Amino acid sequence: MLTLHTWTTPNGRKIPIMLEELGLQYTIKTVNIGKGEQFQPEFLAISPNNKIPAIVDTDADGNSVSIFESGAILTYLAEKTGKLLPASGPERYEVLEWLHWQIGGLGPMLGQVGFFAIRAEEKSALAIQHFIDEADRLLGVMDKQLSKHAYIAGAAYSIADIACYPWTVGILDKLKPALGDKLETKPHLQRWLNMIGARPAVQRGMALPKVD
Amino acid sequence: MLTLHTWTTPNGRKIPIMLEELGLQYTIKTVNIGKGEQFQPEFLAISPNNKIPAIVDTDADGNSVSIFESGAILTYLAEKTGKLLPASGPERYEVLEWLHWQIGGLGPMLGQVGFFAIRAEEKSALAIQHFIDEADRLLGVMDKQLSKHAYIAGAAYSIADIACYPWTVGILDKLKPALGDKLETKPHLQRWLNMIGARPAVQRGMALPKVD
Repeated sequence: MLTLHTWTTPNGRKIPIMLEELGLQYTIKTVNIGKGEQFQPEFLAISPNNKIPAIVDTDADGNSVSIFESGAILTYLAEKTGKLLPASGPERYEVLEWLHWQIGGLGPMLGQVGFFAIRAEEKSALAIQHFIDEADRLLGVMDKQLSKHAYIAGAAYSIADIACYPWTVGILDKLKPALGDKLETKPHLQRWLNMIGARPAVQRGMALPKVD
Repeated sequence: MLTLHTWTTPNGRKIPIMLEELGLQYTIKTVNIGKGEQFQPEFLAISPNNKIPAIVDTDADGNSVSIFESGAILTYLAEKTGKLLPASGPERYEVLEWLHWQIGGLGPMLGQVGFFAIRAEEKSALAIQHFIDEADRLLGVMDKQLSKHAYIAGAAYSIADIACYPWTVGILDKLKPALGDKLETKPHLQRWLNMIGARPAVQRGMALPKVD
């Protein structure tokens, strides 16, 4: 049995998308980070960095593995099923380089745009400009890559697309006040957003977790 | 033939450490980021995000693979040699979750401490405190993990240790003005720093690339 602990954030939605793409059975447990549920001991036991998402996967013999960090979970699910990440060869490392690019660059930098430009009560013009500039640079790198390839890691849809999508689509939504117009100059990124957003599994995953 | 493109930064030193641990033959090409060499077309062709490190690995038949992003390169070298990352099982994903934790958390947050507290000419007290608090939280997570395990991902030395070391040791050096005293309250992290720093391959890797 596979249990997903998650919430309605960009990192939190990567795994529902992946599970919907794979057609795996799973149960969702919501971790309301607005209420501080990520600091409860039973959640910290599987996610010591107090961040969603995390999964617990228990096999028929009762052996279980728990994994935190969205990039590690995507890699685990891809390797478990043999899908969305080639098992070997240059294509495997094209996917992993763009996955790590999202995990180490696009995600943290868009996250800081959200903090400094939108959520922080006190405003630092220096920090806002620093992160908007870096986000725009990263989105430009993505646009250039998508000018040459259908998907972020080349010709095939992969976990790199799944990692990038919930963050990038946020620019049309929560990050729009800070970054909205940065997308208008990036036609290849817009094409990709439309293409990924049209996938039924992506639409189902983006609507999860359901919360009241 | 394996060529490493790198510079004297925490991310840039992960790969020399890994190559020294593995005993692989390699050539270093320096990319002086102080002189903007990361923007030269021949480097962008292998690292479109204009960041070091990157590698090009050419086999005896002349087939070559180029990889950017330090986490992807560490994974490639571990899978190429079958070392420092278990091939399967829970231990594999313990390494990958802590590798991703470094790539998406520890690295970017310590990097922003360096920018806002040390390199930026204009100072934002909000941003400095935000990133010092987050860095201290992450170092606390690492200290807690190291209170229960010899190495960052459990009982065995792995690419997760290699990813974390150059960033963490920077707190004793470049990040000391901002974070120096945060280490004094983290004895398990200090034990680990001493243990990793005593490895000959780590000492050789940390001294690379040699620059004038």
